[in-house]
Amino acid sequence: MEKIYIFDTTLRDGEQAPGIHLNVRQKLQLAEQLDRLNVDIIEAGFPISSKSDFNSVVEISKTIKNKRIAALARAVPKDIDTAGEALKFAKYPVIHTFISSSDIHLEYQFKKTRQEALDLAETAVKLARKYTDNVEFSAMDATRSDRDFLCRMYEVAIKAGAKVLNVPDTVGYALPEEYASLIDYLIQNIKGIEDIIISVHCHNDLGLAVANSILAIQHGARQIEVAVNGIGERAGNAALEEIAMIIDTRKKDLNFYTDLNLKEIMRTSTLVRHLTGYSVAPNKPIVGKNVFTHEAGIHQDGMLKHPSTYEIMKPEDIGSQPTRLLLGKHSGRHAFIKRINELGFSLKENEVEKAFLKFKELAERKGEISDADLKAIVNEEIREIEEFFRLKYYQVINGSSIKSTATVGLEVNGNFMESAAYGDGPVDASFKAIDNITSMKVELLDYNIEAVTSGKDAIGSVKITVKYKDLEVMGSAISTDVIEASIKSYIDALNRIMIYKANQNT
Amino acid sequence: MEKIYIFDTTLRDGEQAPGIHLNVRQKLQLAEQLDRLNVDIIEAGFPISSKSDFNSVVEISKTIKNKRIAALARAVPKDIDTAGEALKFAKYPVIHTFISSSDIHLEYQFKKTRQEALDLAETAVKLARKYTDNVEFSAMDATRSDRDFLCRMYEVAIKAGAKVLNVPDTVGYALPEEYASLIDYLIQNIKGIEDIIISVHCHNDLGLAVANSILAIQHGARQIEVAVNGIGERAGNAALEEIAMIIDTRKKDLNFYTDLNLKEIMRTSTLVRHLTGYSVAPNKPIVGKNVFTHEAGIHQDGMLKHPSTYEIMKPEDIGSQPTRLLLGKHSGRHAFIKRINELGFSLKENEVEKAFLKFKELAERKGEISDADLKAIVNEEIREIEEFFRLKYYQVINGSSIKSTATVGLEVNGNFMESAAYGDGPVDASFKAIDNITSMKVELLDYNIEAVTSGKDAIGSVKITVKYKDLEVMGSAISTDVIEASIKSYIDALNRIMIYKANQNT
Repeated sequence: MEKIYIFDTTLRDGEQAPGIHLNVRQKLQLAEQLDRLNVDIIEAGFPISSKSDFNSVVEISKTIKNKRIAALARAVPKDIDTAGEALKFAKYPVIHTFISSSDIHLEYQFKKTRQEALDLAETAVKLARKYTDNVEFSAMDATRSDRDFLCRMYEVAIKAGAKVLNVPDTVGYALPEEYASLIDYLIQNIKGIEDIIISVHCHNDLGLAVANSILAIQHGARQIEVAVNGIGERAGNAALEEIAMIIDTRKKDLNFYTDLNLKEIMRTSTLVRHLTGYSVAPNKPIVGKNVFTHEAGIHQDGMLKHPSTYEIMKPEDIGSQPTRLLLGKHSGRHAFIKRINELGFSLKENEVEKAFLKFKELAERKGEISDADLKAIVNEEIREIEEFFRLKYYQVINGSSIKSTATVGLEVNGNFMESAAYGDGPVDASFKAIDNITSMKVELLDYNIEAVTSGKDAIGSVKITVKYKDLEVMGSAISTDVIEASIKSYIDALNRIMIYKANQNT
Repeated sequence: MEKIYIFDTTLRDGEQAPGIHLNVRQKLQLAEQLDRLNVDIIEAGFPISSKSDFNSVVEISKTIKNKRIAALARAVPKDIDTAGEALKFAKYPVIHTFISSSDIHLEYQFKKTRQEALDLAETAVKLARKYTDNVEFSAMDATRSDRDFLCRMYEVAIKAGAKVLNVPDTVGYALPEEYASLIDYLIQNIKGIEDIIISVHCHNDLGLAVANSILAIQHGARQIEVAVNGIGERAGNAALEEIAMIIDTRKKDLNFYTDLNLKEIMRTSTLVRHLTGYSVAPNKPIVGKNVFTHEAGIHQDGMLKHPSTYEIMKPEDIGSQPTRLLLGKHSGRHAFIKRINELGFSLKENEVEKAFLKFKELAERKGEISDADLKAIVNEEIREIEEFFRLKYYQVINGSSIKSTATVGLEVNGNFMESAAYGDGPVDASFKAIDNITSMKVELLDYNIEAVTSGKDAIGSVKITVKYKDLEVMGSAISTDVIEASIKSYIDALNRIMIYKANQNT
């Protein structure tokens, strides 16, 4: 099996994505995680572009000692000198220098002739070699370049001392077979290519970055440039996690491996999501929160009989939570019975039938069915959701020089009770007043409000997650009054806990 | 040019995604939008699986009269009869029936021999033909099936009357060249394939669904099964918008077209995002909010000189907003000067230099730079942000039977002013009190609170967007008190507006 080198550009091309701005400390934190994930090369920044990029490269070079650290530089002497300077402390420095090879770029943007571009490439690589033996050369917009000119440019770079040739699909334009044929062409036509590693850097404008990268290694490339969660300029780069899991899942057929520590994938993805503020869709391959969840009845049925029927990877392999079978209206009898049994019930056949019908009916109305719901079904107790606690009234006073104070009245299993509390803000005060009444130790894990409609009297939708002993429960409510929505969502969560508790005692 | 048929399964496989549950009214609304988008076939549901699926197929069949409407059915008589019944009102009904062809599925899940599977396939297609001439047959898990057995199964389906043969990569396992070679094999080895349309249905577990579909049409398939935003079971299906834009952007090379109305893509994507609650990452190809935004200095420079340098599609083509050049720390001098000029300033060279240095310094600290910031820079007035309005105090009373009432005191350009107002909830009341003081007509466009830390005294981060005349401005603030954070973010936005106004007058 041959090794594929993973060149991570999350800190460079990734950080270049619109709206992402990491400071030096954050970049260092991410670099340390990339080190744990065990990528081969960390592209730490573009030192000439800003002081913070420069400092990040310096700090990462000082800290990460067992990985190659790359810095980007245009094929311009001051860029390369700055990159060399920033990499001064790196144990294994890489200078990554680039110039466009496409006529579109040379003519419209850089106003250079092809010969001038070749000369700049040569000078740049030679200068970079004064700082390090590891020089990577990129022909920007390679996929829209004249192939023969591209070969000439790469030959110039090899002669000048480049060790890695990168073939960027800068604008994300290439089709998979087209990109594969370009790699074939380069290997057949570049003199001196034998000792060189071909690297690929694909953009995802058309959603083909990962596929193009995979075809490229099947056709002779040996390094892939990736970013965690696929972030980067515009639609981003090839997603590290997808590349990693394709090579791992299909290793027997591809005959490749990477040195990545796959169990760190989920943690790295989560860190990048938090640091960048870039959300990850629930259906994002590998790291989306629902990609190991099965809902269709027929899929659940298969998974219960034999996981290989519908699962080609295990979530545990990437350090994620075990596979979930989500009970909902698409679920079949088999999954329903399994869960009921796991919850400790054992039903006779006619009882199963009755409970299953109720389950389907509730699933139609409610969507996802929780364990608490299931227990209630089995106990034939379900009305909508049993309101053990019901909000009777609340009043809140707060302000800049007033201690936030809330009074809440609840009907508790039919009895009226009220209490007051102060707190850090009106939400905290109200929740504390409720806690005084319920005497339950509940921890708030997550809180989120979004405007559902626009305008100042927008309806706010509050979703909260609370923890009670080992149980995590969600509550939700909507209102034009954010405090009211918060209180109601908290009570909703408490009611779900009560149903759970009641069912545990039966 | 040959036509590629677009078979949309957003309402069936898409709706099967974990946590997505659309009611009949929502499904109908989406079907009407798919009609405007002009897909060829709308797969409206899986009638046997639930009452709501059945009713959705009925309602969509009654309403959408110029598209084919498909319903899914296992290769089981009661499924097919139910599908036929649900499609009763359809003008162009399609029954889509399926059975597994892989030994993994047959052995572990269905406990059927290969011969039994062939018999079920034959019976199913024949029965479906009693309801409609348009029968599509799918061999589930085709990509993990024995190729010769797969051919036999498809031949049985053709003989029984199927018009479309679908080749699902059910578990998202196939590599692009492997999938292409499977299509080649089917075309070469299935008797009677000449008059049949080959359809592909790829899952995105490894991030290859779109690429696999594109290779398949290059190798002879003529129908692609897609879902909007790529939703579906687990990591979902091939994303409609990516398939559409690959075929359109590369039509000259691919020699294919679709009948899609591309300008409806963005609207469809937004509707699906709202209805399903499935977020779309900012870097999601085609429909992510940042994919037409350019931040790197070198890219912005190119875009300003000639858009084709870094843009292969126009956002307007898919009904999206025009391309944005986002000013930030990666922006170069060229983009900075252009924006300054657009804002109506004309600077001498040494002034440009000074302003550009200030801009880079601020960008390092703040990330994104707004027009108001730019004007402040140019006026050499920037301290952090000039506080024209400053919060002195606020107090809010609200409750379930109390009209939410707020009193706010502001320092307005040095003078103390206060006002009270009631409103729909405490946020509305406070904003109205502020409006009384400022007399500015400001519209709230967006409002969002998230917990930054956990626990009941979590710090909430409020981000709001307001509109003042033609100007959209964001404001933000954090506090443990959600009302205080809301008020401060509103004042932050107002201050940004004032800076803008001040700069317009100079």
